[in-house]
Amino acid sequence: METYTPTNRTQVHRLPKRAVYDKAQVHAILDEGRICHVGFVLDGQPFVIPTGYARRGDTLYIHGSAASRMVRESSSGIPISVTVTLLDGFVLARSAFHHSMNYRSVVILGRARLVTDADEKMEALRSFTNHIVDGRWEEVRPPTPSEMKATSVLALALEEVSAKVRTGGPIDDEEDYALPVWAGVVPVRLEAGEPIPDERLAPGVATVDKGRVLSGGS
Amino acid sequence: METYTPTNRTQVHRLPKRAVYDKAQVHAILDEGRICHVGFVLDGQPFVIPTGYARRGDTLYIHGSAASRMVRESSSGIPISVTVTLLDGFVLARSAFHHSMNYRSVVILGRARLVTDADEKMEALRSFTNHIVDGRWEEVRPPTPSEMKATSVLALALEEVSAKVRTGGPIDDEEDYALPVWAGVVPVRLEAGEPIPDERLAPGVATVDKGRVLSGGS
Repeated sequence: METYTPTNRTQVHRLPKRAVYDKAQVHAILDEGRICHVGFVLDGQPFVIPTGYARRGDTLYIHGSAASRMVRESSSGIPISVTVTLLDGFVLARSAFHHSMNYRSVVILGRARLVTDADEKMEALRSFTNHIVDGRWEEVRPPTPSEMKATSVLALALEEVSAKVRTGGPIDDEEDYALPVWAGVVPVRLEAGEPIPDERLAPGVATVDKGRVLSGGS
Repeated sequence: METYTPTNRTQVHRLPKRAVYDKAQVHAILDEGRICHVGFVLDGQPFVIPTGYARRGDTLYIHGSAASRMVRESSSGIPISVTVTLLDGFVLARSAFHHSMNYRSVVILGRARLVTDADEKMEALRSFTNHIVDGRWEEVRPPTPSEMKATSVLALALEEVSAKVRTGGPIDDEEDYALPVWAGVVPVRLEAGEPIPDERLAPGVATVDKGRVLSGGS
């Protein structure tokens, strides 16, 4: 089993039994998520901004616009934190105190670099697109040079990484098990609804298979 | 319409037409979300940590454990950022470049205070519990004094707040509309599955109505 090595900063102190450093599990969480939260610091103030991303091997690519403050600041090599969280369920206990959530989250620390190599950038954009809909890149018009210029891509190495995972039912205090209160887990997941066609859809175009959305990796 | 006043730090520069400062809309996003991402800085390194929360009026209460680093650091009055993001759909365009996501997100900046008043803390815990399942607090065993002590609650004033919202279909380049590519929106939402009872459920207890999960406010 390949694992990430915990550092002082990624060692999980609180509920260490929930800590995961296994690369395969970390990658699976990143591949299932669709939005990450990027944290960066500006004049001592942290900012946390949601954006799209995709993983390729041991690199996380973060999508931005060349105009956005997040990209401008992050690409200057300042320390950032990127977090991906999947909510899996609500854990209902017999006592208020033992209520919890089942979740899987990954925290990545490091310094981002702006992707300037044209081939690497194109591959990252392909990953973003296919992370939204499996195989989508192969169906759509590829980016023009000016569109490439208008998009910024940040790369963050998956080196200083930790995950936390909670699964299973509630853990109640022994004397509470007799209480006539429903306890257990209400699972939740992100589900795709029926595709809504654009008003100007060309005639005779087959509807996208919604099973290709939320279907997995990048 | 009551609004938050944009500051230098919450003025949305990138795609300003997506900016929302309307309090009612901000509150609705916060009430629909279940997990927030808290950003704080430690030795120059930002950390972004997911946790539960609830809104009461113009205050966001953030759930923590007395033992967690996030709470320890945030409650010392350091600047934090709290972000709540709801993913509403994938926007599929005819070109890779115009792919997007529909989302609603709120970013709150400020300094958190540790809630020490017993009544305020109890009310916050009630809100956390009812934010998971509507009316749950009234059914379960309330916290004991030692459980109260083991839980930390941070309060963050909703003062420096901005939201961003994207809705609607793709905006393609005029010459791309003729392409035989499906375009439109695939909506997504968090859905509750069938409740999974705890193994040690007391006999004769009715299953929780899953409609009470993800059903709204706090």
